[in-house]
Amino acid sequence: MNNSVTVAQAEQIIISRARDYGNEHIPFDSSIGRVLAEDIKADRDLPPCDRVTMDGIAINYTDLENRTRSFRVMSTIAAGDAPVDIAAGECVEIMTGTALPATADTVIRYEDISITNGIASLLIDKIKKGQNIHLKGRDKKQNDTVATKGHFIDPALISMATSVGKATLLVRKLPKVVIISTGNELIPVNDTPTPYQVRSSNSHTVKAALQRYCLSADLLHLPDEPQITKEKIRKCLERYDVIILSGGVSMGKFDYVPQVLDELSVTKLFHKVQQRPGKPFWFGTHSNNTLVFAFPGNPVSTFMCLHRYFIPWLETSLIQSQSVKTPKYAVLNGDVTFAAPLQYFVQVKLRINEQGQILATPMEGHGSGDFANLLDTDAFMELPLEQSNFKKGEVHRIWPFKQLI
Amino acid sequence: MNNSVTVAQAEQIIISRARDYGNEHIPFDSSIGRVLAEDIKADRDLPPCDRVTMDGIAINYTDLENRTRSFRVMSTIAAGDAPVDIAAGECVEIMTGTALPATADTVIRYEDISITNGIASLLIDKIKKGQNIHLKGRDKKQNDTVATKGHFIDPALISMATSVGKATLLVRKLPKVVIISTGNELIPVNDTPTPYQVRSSNSHTVKAALQRYCLSADLLHLPDEPQITKEKIRKCLERYDVIILSGGVSMGKFDYVPQVLDELSVTKLFHKVQQRPGKPFWFGTHSNNTLVFAFPGNPVSTFMCLHRYFIPWLETSLIQSQSVKTPKYAVLNGDVTFAAPLQYFVQVKLRINEQGQILATPMEGHGSGDFANLLDTDAFMELPLEQSNFKKGEVHRIWPFKQLI
Repeated sequence: MNNSVTVAQAEQIIISRARDYGNEHIPFDSSIGRVLAEDIKADRDLPPCDRVTMDGIAINYTDLENRTRSFRVMSTIAAGDAPVDIAAGECVEIMTGTALPATADTVIRYEDISITNGIASLLIDKIKKGQNIHLKGRDKKQNDTVATKGHFIDPALISMATSVGKATLLVRKLPKVVIISTGNELIPVNDTPTPYQVRSSNSHTVKAALQRYCLSADLLHLPDEPQITKEKIRKCLERYDVIILSGGVSMGKFDYVPQVLDELSVTKLFHKVQQRPGKPFWFGTHSNNTLVFAFPGNPVSTFMCLHRYFIPWLETSLIQSQSVKTPKYAVLNGDVTFAAPLQYFVQVKLRINEQGQILATPMEGHGSGDFANLLDTDAFMELPLEQSNFKKGEVHRIWPFKQLI
Repeated sequence: MNNSVTVAQAEQIIISRARDYGNEHIPFDSSIGRVLAEDIKADRDLPPCDRVTMDGIAINYTDLENRTRSFRVMSTIAAGDAPVDIAAGECVEIMTGTALPATADTVIRYEDISITNGIASLLIDKIKKGQNIHLKGRDKKQNDTVATKGHFIDPALISMATSVGKATLLVRKLPKVVIISTGNELIPVNDTPTPYQVRSSNSHTVKAALQRYCLSADLLHLPDEPQITKEKIRKCLERYDVIILSGGVSMGKFDYVPQVLDELSVTKLFHKVQQRPGKPFWFGTHSNNTLVFAFPGNPVSTFMCLHRYFIPWLETSLIQSQSVKTPKYAVLNGDVTFAAPLQYFVQVKLRINEQGQILATPMEGHGSGDFANLLDTDAFMELPLEQSNFKKGEVHRIWPFKQLI
């Protein structure tokens, strides 16, 4: 297959070009989806004090050992209050989240006592020394790392960051990305096409998929005109870290993109991958480090190349780790035959069965132009190159494009 | 258990209060995460014409049957051009995405021909009638439904919507939500706490989790002061569809919330659920239909109640279907013992193994106050009430709070 590369080769070439775009500080409340670029440490022990976990009374267990069953209520402590000391035979009413007095060591919940005339009496016998207390430093010690850099920021991280006082977070900067659609047949979404025209959809789709990373890409459309194409791409090479192209990379007479990129000194790292869909995929780099992902213009091809190559590249660049996300596998839930000497990415519908297994039902659609099928499916399953017949029950790697979980 | 409800009862009571907040039109490019409120139909056949899927030449197969092996190239058709007719012995050069001429029925790719002096000659013998053509209407017919209401809008839907010309989409309106934190012990994220204070984090966490649905909730903090609490909640009942409270619902002396809600004519639908964490959860409704989700203030409790109850309620309200999302299951990857007569939601770390199974490793943490543990885990596993010992290998339902896929 003339000069084409395998999927594994394409992946290796792309991932080895993962780049560091630096870091920036942003407010915690606009950080969901970004990648943390610093370790977050506990500013104090967690919990910061011996913390009461039930509403009730705090006593000293020695009193129980001395057969005391009633306690004089000395005061009531709310969360946020400083603790108050108690002596033998005394207790304090105390609320969840409160700091335990140093002279108390056990908390008995309201359900297990009665209080009359300032005296709390036990209703039960079974009391464990130290019960209902979340000990100081039990979860984390001061200066322990509570979140490590490389973490995608999610609500659980917001919970931790806000509680240790991180109002601003150091996050990874995102690359500047432009998505370029090509082809005279494309018209704007608002327009009415002739039967020979189609509305522009790929670039909007790619832009939408990048929103998850808070990456706001610019859009540009180019006609099939080599001079304009060249001039516009020249400017994009100056302004952007990444150019994603859709269309113009096939064998067609109006597929000016590879030639124009060559004239603009963008070094081709590969053109054509032994895969379906997405075979004409072109990838290269400019001397200023701008990367060019030129995807075939068929909607399914662009969608597959985006999820199989661009997003892993982006995540590796952001996480700055060679270990990309753990591979995901699913059980093929139907037979598939694919005889061409290409790595086949079959579209599958995912579902988790009652055995906790991910089942992938193949829904092949009608080729690279059939984007209606993308709506009904959840992932591409990557089927091994060396096989032609794939049987129900086989387990293969999946590249999900929807959130199963 | 006095007046408490089971998890199943709490769920049923909450889901039966799913509400319809109406619909609104928004631009497609700000619709990711929203829920589609209309069926989208194909404005024309998909593909809209017999669409060429390879760059090459278009011929009439009858010529091949008549042993013609060379074809006069009459013209070149680019994508977007109107088709040109051909006669016997003729062909047109034609590009991917182009409309096939009515007089042609087969496309041969450039790789399989040579063109010299305006004559295209075949390099191969095996040609299938009708090959390399994506037939008009093969994917969808005009007026076919291509996306149905109730669909969460994702990049695949953007692909379809833009290609059928839907520049604006009818989506479900979101409820107006306020998140109220309570407790004198809470201070702002920027401040330095005493050992008896903690920074406000629950409300930020809940707000962050709702971003995924494009739901921008307001935040409000209330001190442990019944008059202020009452006045502020009264105003919220007028202004919001949903009030999410965090804290103030336990047995504590300063837990004014249930009493204040009662005074404001918010009908209690339940208080206390037979579960851990999150037992003091209070849920009610006002006569103006405002719903009040009053979660316990412990971070893990709030987080669990949010994912187990509020988000399913929100999704049911948006999708307007009784069938909430399909349950998700995972294989318990370690033993767990839990003897209390409560439904235990154990925190688990998820991973997909090479058999396509979702394994859930229990990581119990140190109780409801241990939010550090949320960072290391991905889901709550809901363990059956009637069991106390849970063995590695058992399959149970999970409530993920991070994206595994």
